[in-house]
Amino acid sequence: MKSKKAVVLLSGGLDSTTTLYWAIDQGYECYALIFNYGQKHYKEVKIAENIAKLLGVKYQIINLEFPWKGSALLDKELTIPKNRNIDDNIPLTYVPGRNIIFLSIATSYAEVIKAETILIGANSIDYSGYPDCRPEFIKAMQNAIMLGTKDGKINIETPLITLSKKDIILLGLSLGVPYEETWSCYIGEDEPCGVCDSCILRKKGFEEACKSIK
Amino acid sequence: MKSKKAVVLLSGGLDSTTTLYWAIDQGYECYALIFNYGQKHYKEVKIAENIAKLLGVKYQIINLEFPWKGSALLDKELTIPKNRNIDDNIPLTYVPGRNIIFLSIATSYAEVIKAETILIGANSIDYSGYPDCRPEFIKAMQNAIMLGTKDGKINIETPLITLSKKDIILLGLSLGVPYEETWSCYIGEDEPCGVCDSCILRKKGFEEACKSIK
Repeated sequence: MKSKKAVVLLSGGLDSTTTLYWAIDQGYECYALIFNYGQKHYKEVKIAENIAKLLGVKYQIINLEFPWKGSALLDKELTIPKNRNIDDNIPLTYVPGRNIIFLSIATSYAEVIKAETILIGANSIDYSGYPDCRPEFIKAMQNAIMLGTKDGKINIETPLITLSKKDIILLGLSLGVPYEETWSCYIGEDEPCGVCDSCILRKKGFEEACKSIK
Repeated sequence: MKSKKAVVLLSGGLDSTTTLYWAIDQGYECYALIFNYGQKHYKEVKIAENIAKLLGVKYQIINLEFPWKGSALLDKELTIPKNRNIDDNIPLTYVPGRNIIFLSIATSYAEVIKAETILIGANSIDYSGYPDCRPEFIKAMQNAIMLGTKDGKINIETPLITLSKKDIILLGLSLGVPYEETWSCYIGEDEPCGVCDSCILRKKGFEEACKSIK
């Protein structure tokens, strides 16, 4: 029988929280993996932890250092873009290697606890163009993980990969996701800034989702 | 022109040190990446650092935590196998996801410093059967890195992948590798134990290399 354990990457944002609720609904025994990687919005770590606790899900917080920065999410010298026209260009908030690293560490965790599934809330419709969110990357990473592990049985599942932000929210609402408990803003102050990519995509998603609810 | 910067995974052992010397000989500007990941033989971190300093190479030490253990190299409850018959079975010293994680972090570093090459001393002849050392894994990881990064230009080079330990040592000697400064033993005490896989493979390599020198 296939193991129903799953390692779920959890940032405390809209996408990963929806993914976690989806996984629980699918009957997975979830193990959340939360990363403290020097992000300016490190408040998301606490928020992710709260969500894991709310659901009674086991979790691990991994402290990582990126001494080389290279992203506006990490580097105090770089400003997070505001009111950007979200197009095909990869923005300054891109963190080099982030999902490659997160999936690698999830692989190690999955192998040790004998989980055969890793869940990541990556989506490539309403997103900032990060290369490590695209389906072709996920597929290639899956292949590498298969060949680089002992039993070669770990799958990466991406339930949101082809959904728009609107549809992610509609899915989440049907699963009872408490979106008021999630956090998306890159700035990480008391209130969401409303003008970073993450706030813009979230706002647009909620507007469209609300319009479609009759 | 192709960037001649390279990120080199450096453990302070025989293979990675030979790889670093090879890279310098090939004209690469090397950036060593050293991992402190809770290994019992953490003395290798200091040894790797010494080698980087000896060569005047820039380096970064990355502190990682593997809270879930799952390897005799990490877990005090597990004994490192002694005098093992090195066959096709993956031994207890296998660290789940290790090279996947190391290569992922190297990818992040490479992307930020605009290096187009990552060098890893993996070899799959005289080795302990770790799945993340096999050429098919390296090839798949290369593909994932290509698709998951901004410019898709980072290559993984494995100059030792098809060499026997004897041939690695002969190559290293021709490049002036000070093998007395390297450390392979998994136990990490004052003197090498002589009976762990790593000591056995090293000893066999030197014996065969010495015999072939006329």
